[in-house]
Amino acid sequence: MPKRLPFSRELDTPCLVIDLDALEANIRSMQSFFSDKTARLRPHFKTHKCLPIAHKQIAAGAKGITAAKVSEAEVLAWGGIKDVLIANQIVGEAKIRRLVGLARHTSVTVAVDSADNARELAAAARAAGATLGVLVEVDIGMGRCGVKPGRDAVELARIVNSQRGLAFRGLQGYEGHLVLREPGAEKDRLTVEAIRLLARTKRAIENEGLCCEEISGGGTGTYRVAASEGVMTEIQAGSYATMDARYAKVTPEFAKALFVLVTIISRPKKGLAIGDAGLKSITSEFGMGEVEGVKGAAVDRLSEEHTLIRVKGEAEKLAVGDRILVTPSHGCTTINLYDKACGVRKGYVECSWRIDGRGKSQ
Amino acid sequence: MPKRLPFSRELDTPCLVIDLDALEANIRSMQSFFSDKTARLRPHFKTHKCLPIAHKQIAAGAKGITAAKVSEAEVLAWGGIKDVLIANQIVGEAKIRRLVGLARHTSVTVAVDSADNARELAAAARAAGATLGVLVEVDIGMGRCGVKPGRDAVELARIVNSQRGLAFRGLQGYEGHLVLREPGAEKDRLTVEAIRLLARTKRAIENEGLCCEEISGGGTGTYRVAASEGVMTEIQAGSYATMDARYAKVTPEFAKALFVLVTIISRPKKGLAIGDAGLKSITSEFGMGEVEGVKGAAVDRLSEEHTLIRVKGEAEKLAVGDRILVTPSHGCTTINLYDKACGVRKGYVECSWRIDGRGKSQ
Repeated sequence: MPKRLPFSRELDTPCLVIDLDALEANIRSMQSFFSDKTARLRPHFKTHKCLPIAHKQIAAGAKGITAAKVSEAEVLAWGGIKDVLIANQIVGEAKIRRLVGLARHTSVTVAVDSADNARELAAAARAAGATLGVLVEVDIGMGRCGVKPGRDAVELARIVNSQRGLAFRGLQGYEGHLVLREPGAEKDRLTVEAIRLLARTKRAIENEGLCCEEISGGGTGTYRVAASEGVMTEIQAGSYATMDARYAKVTPEFAKALFVLVTIISRPKKGLAIGDAGLKSITSEFGMGEVEGVKGAAVDRLSEEHTLIRVKGEAEKLAVGDRILVTPSHGCTTINLYDKACGVRKGYVECSWRIDGRGKSQ
Repeated sequence: MPKRLPFSRELDTPCLVIDLDALEANIRSMQSFFSDKTARLRPHFKTHKCLPIAHKQIAAGAKGITAAKVSEAEVLAWGGIKDVLIANQIVGEAKIRRLVGLARHTSVTVAVDSADNARELAAAARAAGATLGVLVEVDIGMGRCGVKPGRDAVELARIVNSQRGLAFRGLQGYEGHLVLREPGAEKDRLTVEAIRLLARTKRAIENEGLCCEEISGGGTGTYRVAASEGVMTEIQAGSYATMDARYAKVTPEFAKALFVLVTIISRPKKGLAIGDAGLKSITSEFGMGEVEGVKGAAVDRLSEEHTLIRVKGEAEKLAVGDRILVTPSHGCTTINLYDKACGVRKGYVECSWRIDGRGKSQ
């Protein structure tokens, strides 16, 4: 009935499964895209949160790793990653102390969008005897963090550049409002438009005599265009390595490598099978996920501890005790629910990896 | 601006905060409701996943604790709880072995909705020299697990009762489709109707000469009616202890005791403040959560690592570095994101509790 899953005999459910061949192919294929680009790849840790995968990405040629939070950057730095960008504003005395402490050991760059924050970071860096790399974050249309392109960004760049303890590196801009759009000419046009805001801001900064060497941003849904315009120097793609059901729709060049193994625990009636993975095992903010390899089975709803699966045709044969794989719709938040992931290759378990960054939201 | 939060100086963010006075009042008030009922309270662990809270519930008079998964039951049993109900089907050889192993040490009852599963449980219990309590689960309208009320349930009860290693205890039926309805006469009528299906099934089972001593079910949204009909013997309410923004609307008799402490990390423009808690710190399947104590501030959207907060009027004064409290819309899944919760009383930190059941989805 479901495709044979020999590894499933070794595992209890629900559990997170990573197809190692697919993962490695995704890492290779993304890296090889960058072989003739000036932009370099700085994969985002927030998706897989798994040191072994970060090390694979570095070994393949990535220039460093992107993190979302200080606690993630700590995992990376203490885990042997030598160049970390925290693509986020870091606020609060205690957290800034940890940040500059980390910068004494590893190359750390952080995003900034306010002058006060820049001054605080600088004072802490000086007190720690560390230097903190800084990217000025520019809002290029997402409407979240960042200063406006142009004059506001130039002004903040000047302030950052004047602070001892900080090293002004360049700009960050993330076209997060575009990454999940349908691929096509319109998406490409909007992406180029967003990136040009960064190019213009960079020129304005350089006209002030400042050096603006890095332009960092981009994601799995926009890397092709973002890396090809000759503007970005690094792309922060995260989801491409493991993928999920949602990204599979916009970047089919990468293979699904991430699954949740689910046991059928009840067949209460025709048309309905119940699995043992609910909202605490598969997140739902981008949809219910997809049943793999069982024709006629679809996740209808997730309650807290249950997968409600509509079954018809062949899928009616699903029985209590059967195992199925579900591709989560959102890998980043689903992985964050697990302490470990099981790596399988050609149907058998090869490794068990700790999700080192799980719960590292501070 | 925000209400003074002296404890926030001791904490990094995002972090989970429990107001201990509110928690204890909720536990006392729910328990006192049961003082003149035949039904008893068996609080659900799946919400708070926190042993200290479970022990408080037992100390207040709860008869035992409800769990959703074997791994949660293990946390409870090894943590000193002597009477555990797993309100769910337990399927799979390895998991059943753990279940019956646990039953050698602690009183364990489990829900069953298939004859094959009952036979498997019985064989494992005999092999382990243990006795497993069993409730036959009946679908009383939720459309998830459970056999049909009436004949199907009677037949399964007979099979369970005939198995050495199993002790047939009674029925489980959960009106999960009703718990979050608006309070009122229609909700009460539907709840009573659902419960009567259990009463009729119990009579049919007793007519067969079987003893059906327990009728277990109910939740925070239905406990009043469910416990008052003289049918249910135990109520599995979970959310009442910590509460969340969603339950606050249907059971205002309990106080909000659960919050996420958030730092404002960016004020990119008028009308918008950005917090440091995203979907990895506050779940969103039931809504965005509520900002407490800051007039004019509302969570508009959660991205993965950010809280997008609409601000107007007084809330425009929110500044980078300010701390606010957000009540999550869904406590059960939000708590499951954290390794620990910080207990505060009258504004100061009193304790740090491990979320013992965090990630225990197996």
